Amino acid sequence: MKALVLERKDELNLRDFPLHEKLGPRDVRVALRTIGVCGSDVHYYTHGAIGPFVVREPMILGHEAAGEIVEVGSDVTELKPGDRVCMEPGIPDPASRATRLGKYNLDPAVRFWATPPVHGVLRPSVVHPADFTFKLPDHVSYAEGAMVEPLAVGVHAATKVQVQPGDVAVVIGAGPIGMVTILAALAAGCARVIVSDVHEPKLDLAGKLGTVLPVNVRSQNLQEVIRRETGGWGADVLFECSGYAPAMAEMFDLACPGGKVALVGIPLEPFAYDVSKAQVKEVRVENVFRYAHVYPRAVAMIASGKIDVKPLITDCFAFEDSIAAFDFAKAMPPSSVKVQIDMPA
Amino acid sequence: MKALVLERKDELNLRDFPLHEKLGPRDVRVALRTIGVCGSDVHYYTHGAIGPFVVREPMILGHEAAGEIVEVGSDVTELKPGDRVCMEPGIPDPASRATRLGKYNLDPAVRFWATPPVHGVLRPSVVHPADFTFKLPDHVSYAEGAMVEPLAVGVHAATKVQVQPGDVAVVIGAGPIGMVTILAALAAGCARVIVSDVHEPKLDLAGKLGTVLPVNVRSQNLQEVIRRETGGWGADVLFECSGYAPAMAEMFDLACPGGKVALVGIPLEPFAYDVSKAQVKEVRVENVFRYAHVYPRAVAMIASGKIDVKPLITDCFAFEDSIAAFDFAKAMPPSSVKVQIDMPA
Amino acid sequence: MKALVLERKDELNLRDFPLHEKLGPRDVRVALRTIGVCGSDVHYYTHGAIGPFVVREPMILGHEAAGEIVEVGSDVTELKPGDRVCMEPGIPDPASRATRLGKYNLDPAVRFWATPPVHGVLRPSVVHPADFTFKLPDHVSYAEGAMVEPLAVGVHAATKVQVQPGDVAVVIGAGPIGMVTILAALAAGCARVIVSDVHEPKLDLAGKLGTVLPVNVRSQNLQEVIRRETGGWGADVLFECSGYAPAMAEMFDLACPGGKVALVGIPLEPFAYDVSKAQVKEVRVENVFRYAHVYPRAVAMIASGKIDVKPLITDCFAFEDSIAAFDFAKAMPPSSVKVQIDMPA
Amino acid sequence: MKALVLERKDELNLRDFPLHEKLGPRDVRVALRTIGVCGSDVHYYTHGAIGPFVVREPMILGHEAAGEIVEVGSDVTELKPGDRVCMEPGIPDPASRATRLGKYNLDPAVRFWATPPVHGVLRPSVVHPADFTFKLPDHVSYAEGAMVEPLAVGVHAATKVQVQPGDVAVVIGAGPIGMVTILAALAAGCARVIVSDVHEPKLDLAGKLGTVLPVNVRSQNLQEVIRRETGGWGADVLFECSGYAPAMAEMFDLACPGGKVALVGIPLEPFAYDVSKAQVKEVRVENVFRYAHVYPRAVAMIASGKIDVKPLITDCFAFEDSIAAFDFAKAMPPSSVKVQIDMPA
Repeated sequence: MKALVLERKDELNLRDFPLHEKLGPRDVRVALRTIGVCGSDVHYYTHGAIGPFVVREPMILGHEAAGEIVEVGSDVTELKPGDRVCMEPGIPDPASRATRLGKYNLDPAVRFWATPPVHGVLRPSVVHPADFTFKLPDHVSYAEGAMVEPLAVGVHAATKVQVQPGDVAVVIGAGPIGMVTILAALAAGCARVIVSDVHEPKLDLAGKLGTVLPVNVRSQNLQEVIRRETGGWGADVLFECSGYAPAMAEMFDLACPGGKVALVGIPLEPFAYDVSKAQVKEVRVENVFRYAHVYPRAVAMIASGKIDVKPLITDCFAFEDSIAAFDFAKAMPPSSVKVQIDMPA
Repeated sequence: MKALVLERKDELNLRDFPLHEKLGPRDVRVALRTIGVCGSDVHYYTHGAIGPFVVREPMILGHEAAGEIVEVGSDVTELKPGDRVCMEPGIPDPASRATRLGKYNLDPAVRFWATPPVHGVLRPSVVHPADFTFKLPDHVSYAEGAMVEPLAVGVHAATKVQVQPGDVAVVIGAGPIGMVTILAALAAGCARVIVSDVHEPKLDLAGKLGTVLPVNVRSQNLQEVIRRETGGWGADVLFECSGYAPAMAEMFDLACPGGKVALVGIPLEPFAYDVSKAQVKEVRVENVFRYAHVYPRAVAMIASGKIDVKPLITDCFAFEDSIAAFDFAKAMPPSSVKVQIDMPA
Repeated sequence: MKALVLERKDELNLRDFPLHEKLGPRDVRVALRTIGVCGSDVHYYTHGAIGPFVVREPMILGHEAAGEIVEVGSDVTELKPGDRVCMEPGIPDPASRATRLGKYNLDPAVRFWATPPVHGVLRPSVVHPADFTFKLPDHVSYAEGAMVEPLAVGVHAATKVQVQPGDVAVVIGAGPIGMVTILAALAAGCARVIVSDVHEPKLDLAGKLGTVLPVNVRSQNLQEVIRRETGGWGADVLFECSGYAPAMAEMFDLACPGGKVALVGIPLEPFAYDVSKAQVKEVRVENVFRYAHVYPRAVAMIASGKIDVKPLITDCFAFEDSIAAFDFAKAMPPSSVKVQIDMPA
Repeated sequence: MKALVLERKDELNLRDFPLHEKLGPRDVRVALRTIGVCGSDVHYYTHGAIGPFVVREPMILGHEAAGEIVEVGSDVTELKPGDRVCMEPGIPDPASRATRLGKYNLDPAVRFWATPPVHGVLRPSVVHPADFTFKLPDHVSYAEGAMVEPLAVGVHAATKVQVQPGDVAVVIGAGPIGMVTILAALAAGCARVIVSDVHEPKLDLAGKLGTVLPVNVRSQNLQEVIRRETGGWGADVLFECSGYAPAMAEMFDLACPGGKVALVGIPLEPFAYDVSKAQVKEVRVENVFRYAHVYPRAVAMIASGKIDVKPLITDCFAFEDSIAAFDFAKAMPPSSVKVQIDMPA
């Protein structure tokens, strides 16, 4: 099959790639329709590795995916050919202790698309477990379906941090994950979201996602804005989505007494955690990692119109232009949020 | 001052009533503008009592109120004359054990408007503690402000039951409290709400409040609808707002494994609780009573547009027509949800 | 193999019973050593059924078990022949939605020993999944190992209801489950337990399990005792272990504002749930069912000496006297708590 | 009255100090009996300040106190002269937002004994609010009563972090706060505690507090011990009580997937927080500060024998030897845990 293959750091090819996947009794075969480009895909392209995960053999990229079922295994009754679906990219070991506790995202043995040595899905079709494949209603597009993956990260963060109805949230960083976290925070009960970034086009877009107050930290003091907007009390919930260590070091100044912080962004190095500041407010810090049991919830919220991911899909390429799509994403134009690639029908 | 006085069961008078309230240092004096009529007000009118609370002396009715501050005590700095506000009707003992634990709604010594022997606010003005008086933004009307009281009940229920983003909720009963609970459940993160009642006009209105599926239990089987809508799994959260004991006895059939139930409605007699049914699903049952610390959150959600209470305000009377308003509310026309009374400016 | 077989209601035989169990790759074969007699075993003996579970074919009884591993499957590395173990009697479907959420006790498809049509373990050996088999340290006896099953019920209840350090708990009913719940409540952080029953010998034993105040409700008013012991505030946590509907109807009078109730006992008919009483205290009601992920925790607490189950093992019979053991248990002598049966080594 | 006065950094005097405290209607006057010496008292002695709190005027030291009531205000009915009591040293503003939410420990306006400019209680008597004064049963000594203050810190940490029955906890640091945290962790449900320190005498004492495994990190690898003791899974709960930044930087290696960390110790500078390590396990971090609503619980657990603080009281001085007591405490002999001072009766 023809696939987008990362041969090695900096070298992408759209070429034939032999993959013969067997369909197990609880598997489905999905023809891919839309695949989103994630920052991690781009990072493998530009660096050849993410931390301990090093691309040593040619690897197909792509893990944010929606498609159409073309074949189902003998024990699959809940899905059938023709169903439009999206898929969770990570498959845990069902017998691991974390999985059995219901926390399969914490299973170290999880196999995740486009994480070496597991191939991604920028290719015509993939075999996947039915348990990690979720039906899309007719009125939800494949493009929206491919957005479920990043959205699930935001929904998981909002769930873990236990947003209360009427909370004021701060989202630090208006990149793709910050954007989906804004949507999730509002859907989860926040009355308002204050979002900080340095890129005006991103803040403009964020400001249109609901009752969202954009703060450009190049020209505004975030702590002062929060103090003013909350009558001096502080934010109920903070979502750290920048992964920028100096911003993290100042988080606790923004929280209210008893406030909560979700660490979603991943900084390259440790940040300076000021214990005293966190203690006098008894801040609770949730460290969040991917998601578990979130896909059906995210699909339900898109389907009911509670969450609209469409404004985040800023750029679309055809599969034959995949390399151009990656080069576009690599340049990170500030007005771009999510780049997607459409497969030929 | 002229007030709406319940002289005794079945006898209302709009008449002069001498009340000389002293303004303490942490009090405000509020000129009333809009007052909602609650089922409990009507019940005192038609029965002269609610449980142990018996109207033995003439009592002013009304506890859902918004107004304008006309005077503030010497230690009040956060509010000033001219501020538009709504007020919590119950004032707890600040030194009680429940209050100190942050659960002031559970303080048995709470003094609550229009609960004998405490007067309500269908009168020109009232003196109230600043701590239980909340500013309304300019774009929120007094009519919306008077809806904060019932809305707070729904928001408190959704908070206690810990709605998770993407939940499917069932609201049993589409009376005023069922309606505000629908709004609160959606705002708190539910993807969808299924609401049951027997009155078609109420279900029609409920169906317009968001992604809400109305079920008329005269003609439809609620359990079957839920089974179909949730793929056989059951509802994540149930809000019992009917207070109808036979409906409560069947609640556990509607919940999913690990589901949660909030008991909001108050049945006149105990209901038959089937322990085995609740156990095999390990249902968690939250019994909710009024609200605590919810007003600022409810105001914030109305202010940000997250919750729109206006469709629930179906009927409006002038203060001089207060008795007609009560007689209208007493008749309970099925197309009526909330009756409000406007005070002369 | 020779087994204790319930042929039908009221008829037990100790006889040869052909069972040929195949050892799967993740299974172990266990030679049984000690088996406790549970109220449910006795109920099948005396009634031939529990609710919808009817004994239609001869069935081996017994599900509280400890033994020694004699053979392990090809993929089992964490256990080996000679290991002393106890076993969870219920095996869920690993692919069910409840199991995947980590709540395998709520999986309706669970196969549970000595629940028709699944055979129990009053027999020489059994094949069991390694994942539900737990090693006992050398200093923990098989008799203690066989107590892990009932203890797990109490530990699960204390976990679900989230005991806080220093809580005052009330345990209603001093039967075997009430007894293990006392142990679990104390281990989970309760400063004190008040236990109610009508049988003096059981209360005497309960009173020796720690800081436990026994209340014989034939001669004492439980509500008054609780009021006196808590300065009028009420109990923080109630564990209902009697399954006696009239006792359940009065539970809410015993709780403090914000108190919690765990329903552990199973009444034969529904009880009268007084919503108003539960609401004014905002009681949280947890309905508990068996246990999930509790076995290793229960073993650890027995092993560390935190929980001592030995005083509860009041009566012991040899396997050849199994029928006498059941007839003894059926008579329910008030000084007996747990009857166990020892297998020949 | 004669008091132990810190005149300035490094200068203590036992001298007359004029203090005329008026007894309000809800106050009690307590004759002090036993006062513990806390690390913060010693730090004011040796440094003249703790962070922003600077000793600018002579200040009486001491805040861990028990005594006997000698006089009660006109509205106090729950206490009477002759009652033996312990007292919370911090009095919040009852009208603050944090206090009203039930989190009075987070009120920035709290007035805390022996924190400039508030005097401590190394003096004959003190006037204190009845609401923060707690009766000791007859069989609990004043020495134990004075231990309630540090114990409350440990109990609060164990409560916030929500210990589950059967957890394995790690306590980092076996100073006085580490020691009370061990006691609290065991009382709150931990099956076992692993404690790390570098001082052998402290580890010896810690090892006698229950099922506690001491680890001297000079000679042992803590991570390896935990791995071995938990079958490679990691600790369920970590209590950081060392305040030693390099130890904190390695905390996340010790936790299990889904584990929890309570930050109790206060490092002088920020520590290096490795977000990725915390994320892959989704560690929850609770920052704890003093305590709220814990005193009655701590007293109840001492009274019931659930917690025994007596082994921690290693050194006792008479009031006239107070300065010697502080010089002893300042030298920090490794075999000393808690130094107390007895007032003349």
